[in-house]
Formats: sequence, C-alpha cells, structure tokens
Amino acid sequence: MSERGKLLVISGPSGAGKSTVVFKAIEGRTDICFSTSVTTRAPRPGEVDGREYFFVDFERFREMVEKDELLEHAEYVANRYGTPRSYVEKRLSEGMNVLLDIEVQGARQVRRRMPEAVLIFIAPPSMEELERRLRGRATDSESAIEGRLIRARQEYQEADFYDYLIINDDVEKAAAKLNAIIEAEHCRFSDWADWLRLH
Amino acid sequence: MSERGKLLVISGPSGAGKSTVVFKAIEGRTDICFSTSVTTRAPRPGEVDGREYFFVDFERFREMVEKDELLEHAEYVANRYGTPRSYVEKRLSEGMNVLLDIEVQGARQVRRRMPEAVLIFIAPPSMEELERRLRGRATDSESAIEGRLIRARQEYQEADFYDYLIINDDVEKAAAKLNAIIEAEHCRFSDWADWLRLH
Repeated sequence: MSERGKLLVISGPSGAGKSTVVFKAIEGRTDICFSTSVTTRAPRPGEVDGREYFFVDFERFREMVEKDELLEHAEYVANRYGTPRSYVEKRLSEGMNVLLDIEVQGARQVRRRMPEAVLIFIAPPSMEELERRLRGRATDSESAIEGRLIRARQEYQEADFYDYLIINDDVEKAAAKLNAIIEAEHCRFSDWADWLRLH
Repeated sequence: MSERGKLLVISGPSGAGKSTVVFKAIEGRTDICFSTSVTTRAPRPGEVDGREYFFVDFERFREMVEKDELLEHAEYVANRYGTPRSYVEKRLSEGMNVLLDIEVQGARQVRRRMPEAVLIFIAPPSMEELERRLRGRATDSESAIEGRLIRARQEYQEADFYDYLIINDDVEKAAAKLNAIIEAEHCRFSDWADWLRLH
C-alpha cells in the first residue's frame, strides 16, 4: 500500500457501545488495526510483549514521557499506560489505519501531538438509554452506574474538540458511519496535493 | 427531516466524469437535489421558471449581486448565471443536501459566503486518461481539447482550498466515496454540539 493510514481516536462513555460499533465496522477489513499500548503493569499469564502490550518498567516509561515518545499517556490503578508514537507512525506509514480507544483527556493529548489524527466521539442516543444499557449489563453497582453517568456528562462537555460525533442508536448504522468517516478522511484534499501536482 | 442539509460544491475538469459520478451517487437518494441557478438568458421552449432556471433580466441580476443574494455568479456567452442564496438556504433548512456543479472560481466565492459548504474536486486518474476521454467523446475539436487540458492543469493549481479530492478511476468507487463524504459530513461534531448539550 502506498497511501498513508489514518490515526482514528475513538472515545465515548462506557455503555455507548463503542467496541460493538468498532468491531462491526472493521469486520473483514484488513487495513485497520488497534494500536498497541505501552504499560508498566506486569504481563499476565499468556500475554506476549508487543502483542497485548509493550511491557516496560516505570523508569523506561518516565523516559518515554520525557522524550515525547508517547502520543498520550494516563495512569490507571497505580500503573501507567501510553501510546507509543513510533509504533503508530510505523503502522501509518505501512498504510494501516490505526485505532485508538481512549478517553477524552488522552484524545486531547493526541490532537496536540498529531493534529492530523481523526477524533471520533461515539455517544448513546440519550442519557436515559445510556442508563438503561448500564443497568442492563448488571455488572456495575448502583454507585458505579451513577459515577459513569456523571462521567459521561462531563465527557460531553469536554469533547468539543472532536471532529465527528456518531450517535449509536443502531449498531449497523453507526458502524457504517464510522466506515464512511474513514473513507471520507482518505479523500482529504490536503493529502492529495502532491498527487495533483504530479498529474 | 430535522437535520439541516449540506451544500456540496462539485468541481473538476471537463472529462473527469463528474456528472456520471454524481448521478451514480444520488441514484435512489431522496435527500439530495441540485441547486437551481438564476440566469439572464432567455428561456428555451419547454423551460419553466424555477425548474430549469430562475429567469431574470440583467437589472434584477445586478441587484442580486449588489445585495449579496447570490452565493456565486459568473458570465458565460454574454449571459450571467448565479446561485441564489435564499433558494439554497430554503432547501438546506428542509434537510436537503444541495449539489452545486460549478467551476473553481465559483467555488471560491461559495467558500467565502458559506464557509460550511463542502467542496469536492473530482479528478481523472491522470492527464493522459483525461486526454483519452476527451478524444473519445469525439465532440470537441483538437484546439478545444487542448484548451480543456490547459484549463484542467490550471484548475488543479487553483483548487488547493477544496476539502476533498475524488479520483475517478472507477465510477462505482468514486460514487461510493462521494456518498461516504456526505455521510461523514453529517457526523461533524460541530453540527451536533447543541444535541450533546441537550442530552
């Protein structure tokens, strides 16, 4: 493949159905991959370095942050997670579209470090529906559900720098929208300026 | 329909296959219409005011220009043609996507007057292919063909402000790209900011 891939950052509240939409969209596509994160947490049995994660110690992680080798990074349950710029760059240059499923704060870091990234927010059709879905999963406690709803509202307010919003009221349609966005982004005039000059 | 339509400006050299791509893309879609132009030329037999064109005299046309009632206008064979802003606005507010097939200079005027318009340039896969297609039509003289090729190169240089480029090497694929662009543009985050605030 000669055409450079796109970095696709996907965010949205827990319960919006992000994963379902994404997996439906990439079904059968060979030009899309997930990014592999760097983490300081220990590998679990069966996990392979460079497959589930790139496993590093805290010192190396700190060095990566200092040398600006991460497109974004965050802390979660006393461990650190980040997206290695070099890995993403390599896949993009191979023509792969790279997916990044991260929160709004991480997306903001990516926008700053790679302005050409495509930022997509996936939202449920309504807060009521989000609540129904979260309750339907029956995995979260009442307080966890309330926390997620508060978090969702907060994300909505912070997400104003995203490029696209997909309302997931129907998985098939939402997946089609995601694929349309990817196709449209590959038609960006600025990406083809060189091509035009040579033709 | 509650969602506002998009103004889609389509340009590209004669012989790029613009019309074929557009008609293939809108086949069966009821949410897209062509804009109706204002013209000073006399109606031909069978033409109906408001259907093929809005027919006006030179004085009214001049007034429309002065009052900024046209999104763009141009002269062609001693007559004037323009796109009435109010007509386009009406269709957009009805939820219709409005197509405008105009040249690069007109597109530049539209961009200035309606920055949210979506500008799409359709190009042939190569200049050699464009030449083949123009010769294949067998309707143009040698000098007309050469004129069109020179014009095409000039348009390429002036088109840097377009949003999208579709290379028409395959009509089906190019039409799918056009439809993907329309679908993606309807997911623009900025269009949904109000929706998010209310949900």
